[in-house]
Amino acid sequence: MNNFEYCVPTRVLFGRDTHKQVGTVIKEYGFKKVLVHYGGGSVKKSGLLDQVTDSLKEQGIEFVLFGGVKPNPTLSLAKEGMELCRQEGIDFILAVGGGSVLDSAKCIADGTLNPEIDPWKYFIKEASPDKALPHGNILTLSASGSETSLSCVITNEDGNYKRGFNSKTHRPLFAILNPELTFSVNKFQTGCGSVDIMMHTLERYLGGNTKDTPLTDRIAEGLLTSVMEAGAIVDKDPKNYEARATLMWAGSLSHNDLTGLGREFMMQVHQLEHELSGLYPCIAHGAGLSALFCSWSRYVCEKDPMRFAQLAVRVMKVEMDFEEPLKTALKGIDRLEEFFQSIKMPVRLSELDDAVREEDFEVMAEKCSFNGTRSLPGIRTLGKQEMIDVYRMAY
Amino acid sequence: MNNFEYCVPTRVLFGRDTHKQVGTVIKEYGFKKVLVHYGGGSVKKSGLLDQVTDSLKEQGIEFVLFGGVKPNPTLSLAKEGMELCRQEGIDFILAVGGGSVLDSAKCIADGTLNPEIDPWKYFIKEASPDKALPHGNILTLSASGSETSLSCVITNEDGNYKRGFNSKTHRPLFAILNPELTFSVNKFQTGCGSVDIMMHTLERYLGGNTKDTPLTDRIAEGLLTSVMEAGAIVDKDPKNYEARATLMWAGSLSHNDLTGLGREFMMQVHQLEHELSGLYPCIAHGAGLSALFCSWSRYVCEKDPMRFAQLAVRVMKVEMDFEEPLKTALKGIDRLEEFFQSIKMPVRLSELDDAVREEDFEVMAEKCSFNGTRSLPGIRTLGKQEMIDVYRMAY
Repeated sequence: MNNFEYCVPTRVLFGRDTHKQVGTVIKEYGFKKVLVHYGGGSVKKSGLLDQVTDSLKEQGIEFVLFGGVKPNPTLSLAKEGMELCRQEGIDFILAVGGGSVLDSAKCIADGTLNPEIDPWKYFIKEASPDKALPHGNILTLSASGSETSLSCVITNEDGNYKRGFNSKTHRPLFAILNPELTFSVNKFQTGCGSVDIMMHTLERYLGGNTKDTPLTDRIAEGLLTSVMEAGAIVDKDPKNYEARATLMWAGSLSHNDLTGLGREFMMQVHQLEHELSGLYPCIAHGAGLSALFCSWSRYVCEKDPMRFAQLAVRVMKVEMDFEEPLKTALKGIDRLEEFFQSIKMPVRLSELDDAVREEDFEVMAEKCSFNGTRSLPGIRTLGKQEMIDVYRMAY
Repeated sequence: MNNFEYCVPTRVLFGRDTHKQVGTVIKEYGFKKVLVHYGGGSVKKSGLLDQVTDSLKEQGIEFVLFGGVKPNPTLSLAKEGMELCRQEGIDFILAVGGGSVLDSAKCIADGTLNPEIDPWKYFIKEASPDKALPHGNILTLSASGSETSLSCVITNEDGNYKRGFNSKTHRPLFAILNPELTFSVNKFQTGCGSVDIMMHTLERYLGGNTKDTPLTDRIAEGLLTSVMEAGAIVDKDPKNYEARATLMWAGSLSHNDLTGLGREFMMQVHQLEHELSGLYPCIAHGAGLSALFCSWSRYVCEKDPMRFAQLAVRVMKVEMDFEEPLKTALKGIDRLEEFFQSIKMPVRLSELDDAVREEDFEVMAEKCSFNGTRSLPGIRTLGKQEMIDVYRMAY
């Protein structure tokens, strides 16, 4: 087990009707003027936005509405948000939505208080924010884990670069998690969410070569098992509160470090996927991950068959083949692939909505390897050529 | 699943040599004068206390030493500490030790800033602290989970009452967890620690009748399995870093709410044990729990055999008896008892160091039931008579 530092200060309010407390909660902290940040029409149509603003009004809290976030949130919209916060004297950002809205809010929070720095510099690691506006959220989609995590992913339309960075400034002050708010998420988006949740843990579990993390492993395995069970239930019964609750809480735990503590953390598949949905912004992140993951697994698993066998036995319920552990490993990957298919997730790039073209693999690998200057460490190191291999295998 | 609120803001620094950073960490927060609180001679003998004070001196931080905490920490010593903090103008308390030292520090932290209130009132729920001195810790014993929890247990020598209460003021600012600092803990204390860690999760897992908490359940089961594996290793090989690390991290997770989220939380066995070690202060908390738990389990399990069967199958590796689940439940309890015995923990009150006398059961039940005015809710409600029954069964 490696040394680690762990701190998740976000206050989680979990359960039915919790979103109605938002005004009271913000009032407790003493904030005066809130930017309410959201996406498209769904939070309006569902009445959620009205419930939120009513709750703020009841507590006499001023607010400014700022919608328009799309999947794969953009730097340009975030820059508009920063300008607005400064003009309006906003002292708190409330994100109402899924991971895209939350990440956009984090980017705005970083940028608002640091007007002298080009915010893209944070994403290309040329600067890091030392302060940010405080922010919190009401989550409407179980997926990214952004509601308690320190990560933030933004797309710069200038070159279609999708990049993320971690910062303590990204930890929300609070996260309001009401599983009922996800009842209306359609099957495809729900499936994408389940995949994304699993990936955050799987990438930690299969991310490197650390040994001796039995407690972290078992927490990770328990989370994966629970998400697969709940994902299958929700696919048939979208208003099943208990299964929605499992997905929602798993989403937070899966990306707040708990499931990888003491382990190296590489995220090769996420990096490969970011190039994909960076180039094809219509590709949902979870669908991209689903299309890549099993091919990536088959590509790297020979380097550590016992690790993949552990996953196969403990999570995918494969019987251990003690003579040929690699067979167990591969059978586990097959079962995971079957699970993705059972919730109608793509398992090949060619299944994705957009017609991904083979000739793009070179471009994506070029970007992902920073023009061939970096390799991605992991169970198997991926240089530019290996990245192309994985994209091809997944096609 | 029930609604819940969850927030564990304590910053954990985990791993080898982390305790040497303590001066730097305290300096970061800007504290000027630290009360270094500890127990007996072991932190002196091991050289740990010197390493801590050296680290403080290096950063130019003033400090006052205040030792003398014994197992089952007393209110009178804590009151001395409050007086000392006020006299010396202390702005931070650093606890160096196990759960007793940490709880004593929490009690001092609450009392110092509230001199007008008798601190025992917090423990009998007649008042609650609205402010406290900030505090942090360097842990030397994996057991109580006090290093990140909001609980604090103190014994009032005036009547031998042992009482605990939860408060946000009890969350440490930081917890420095170096498993190497537990290498010298003897087998008996290590065993007591493993039992205590398991109990914090078991009491949540078996505490009430909540349904539909699959993710919390699997995290709990993973933790229990890991602690049993690590506990057995450490019993034979006390300097096994990885197993000590598992116990240490499990200790924190087991009592910071994670393993019971969404569930009712009753702690019947803890309440019964507090009377025991309240009356016989020489009884180690973990040993008291170990002596009571399996009898308590047998006493209540008929009310929810399937819950106990789940524990038996998933953690104790018992084959499910589908015709008679109660048999599975009981077999699981037997295996747990065997595990306790394998690490030389008592499984009967009559095995405890002190000669516990049968005629005390009435007195203990009288105290635990607040003179017969309260029952303990749970899988099976325990009134005064049922408490006596459990003590008798465990004798």
